[in-house]
Amino acid sequence: MLRIPFKKMKAEFERVLKKLGFTPAQVTLCAKVFSENSRDGIYTHGLNRFLPFIKLVVDKKINIHAEPKKISSFGVLEQWDGHYGPGMINASVCMRRAVAIAKQQGVGVVALRNNSHWMRGGTYGLMAVNAGCIGICSTNCIPLIPPWGSGQRKLGNNPIVIAVPHKNGPLLIDTSLAQFSNGKLQFYSRVGKKLPFAGGFDVEGNLTRDPDKIKESKRPLPIGLWKGAGLAFMLDVVLMCLSGGKASVNLEKEKTVDFGVSQVFIALDPSKFWNDNEMDGRLDEIITHYLSAKPLTNSDYVHYPGQGMLKAREENLRLGIPVDEDFWKKIQMF
Amino acid sequence: MLRIPFKKMKAEFERVLKKLGFTPAQVTLCAKVFSENSRDGIYTHGLNRFLPFIKLVVDKKINIHAEPKKISSFGVLEQWDGHYGPGMINASVCMRRAVAIAKQQGVGVVALRNNSHWMRGGTYGLMAVNAGCIGICSTNCIPLIPPWGSGQRKLGNNPIVIAVPHKNGPLLIDTSLAQFSNGKLQFYSRVGKKLPFAGGFDVEGNLTRDPDKIKESKRPLPIGLWKGAGLAFMLDVVLMCLSGGKASVNLEKEKTVDFGVSQVFIALDPSKFWNDNEMDGRLDEIITHYLSAKPLTNSDYVHYPGQGMLKAREENLRLGIPVDEDFWKKIQMF
Repeated sequence: MLRIPFKKMKAEFERVLKKLGFTPAQVTLCAKVFSENSRDGIYTHGLNRFLPFIKLVVDKKINIHAEPKKISSFGVLEQWDGHYGPGMINASVCMRRAVAIAKQQGVGVVALRNNSHWMRGGTYGLMAVNAGCIGICSTNCIPLIPPWGSGQRKLGNNPIVIAVPHKNGPLLIDTSLAQFSNGKLQFYSRVGKKLPFAGGFDVEGNLTRDPDKIKESKRPLPIGLWKGAGLAFMLDVVLMCLSGGKASVNLEKEKTVDFGVSQVFIALDPSKFWNDNEMDGRLDEIITHYLSAKPLTNSDYVHYPGQGMLKAREENLRLGIPVDEDFWKKIQMF
Repeated sequence: MLRIPFKKMKAEFERVLKKLGFTPAQVTLCAKVFSENSRDGIYTHGLNRFLPFIKLVVDKKINIHAEPKKISSFGVLEQWDGHYGPGMINASVCMRRAVAIAKQQGVGVVALRNNSHWMRGGTYGLMAVNAGCIGICSTNCIPLIPPWGSGQRKLGNNPIVIAVPHKNGPLLIDTSLAQFSNGKLQFYSRVGKKLPFAGGFDVEGNLTRDPDKIKESKRPLPIGLWKGAGLAFMLDVVLMCLSGGKASVNLEKEKTVDFGVSQVFIALDPSKFWNDNEMDGRLDEIITHYLSAKPLTNSDYVHYPGQGMLKAREENLRLGIPVDEDFWKKIQMF
């Protein structure tokens, strides 16, 4: 397996982005996001997604000259428009803004409309964490999941991201509301394996672990069945109400990838409520209690949210980031 | 089936609460919460929960003379202490305060420590909605769910509540992070039926629809399997960090019902961003699109979050609220 040093990967992204006409500040930020996503083990939204992103830029589906602008504000709540610019730049600007408000007022909420794909939601949670804040964010997307009781897709798999600072590295969840992402379904299909648990219904309406049958029925399972479907609906509603932007129903009409999505970025600064190291101590107590749960079998393990990322990060910084050789070659040829 | 008019039920609750020494303001608020929960079809947290609540008051496990107090604040973020007073009063005070902040600053976040059980989380989401705000809240609780990969309970089934105002009645989700609540498992066990979907593992580690086998293994399923377990952990962490109060690990030591829980109440006021009726129009578009999803079979149906509640509310106001005759008699005898 080919492994590429983090700095080398980042430099390569920078080279390509520069060639495409991104400004120096954009080059730095974009390359940072893509390389850090791969560094943290989120390969699907790092290097593996760089070429499709570049294609959208070349095809002018993403406008690299667009800049996010504040449209409206009321206290600590702001509404921004991304003007279909690069998703990770718009999202970064908005979370940075939310953090700046939180540092002044305890909480900052920035709602963003007309953004393109933000890649990995966790990026923006971690951005808040790096500034000592709790970060919460979400995005909507094209309909991928049917409402409970139907087979017709109407809901996005709208992810929930929650990140909390901790001295040993951030606590982080970044989870879509589908039990298995499209990427995971495709992976299991490609290697000809069954999913570890039911991931959707077959055309007869039976739960199945067969990824191809789910592809056929177009009925992937929301997390918690009717519960996840309800959460996806409510997130879409909140994102629309706060941003004034598109809901999934409007994105459906775009029919392609996620263009013009609505997102929200929340930063909360609890630091004023705590003495030095006191919050870390309380978090240690929670983590220790959690990890004291005995694994069921020798092949089971208990990880807290973010622990897997920290492990991947350490390993990838030490040994280099594992890459798909084909993708890596194509980027080098660009 | 005995049905009791809403006003009569409320008056009966008021009578009992007054007798127990609640102040007139407390009587009004408490009776309102319990009777409206039953009115909305949430019987488990309405009349059915009134007697256990009364018992806690009589046993002095809930201190009816305690008042919630603000401990600390930073901008729109406030920290309150519930001093183990009646949970629905503390929670109401805090969501009311969050709304008041949101009306001034767009967003209000109130974190509450040392509360007793709030009954139905939806109550406080609806409170924000009645003031024209989006309401979001959560609470932690004693450990009920094991981390993914273990059989030992370490996580609460910490609910997520999201409520959004709409002209036809609120959109509302109020969902715990367990696939089936303890109440649901007990119900299926009592009537000797299998759950409609897997709700946990048996002692051998196989997914099961048998409620008794889940009771035996103590391994109820979080929504979305590892995803819900991760969400429960992160909610517990956020609730602790913002409130400075107890996490599930600390509640575990209490070993009884939920005393001294940590909660958070968020109100967001998007009204400044919209012209009259404009947001309602956009919500109508989302709802119409959602309800256009064709049910899979004649016995399936598609409901948006909150629709079932509105139906139950209308029916119960028209016909009276269905009650368990035994519970109703006992309350009358009090």
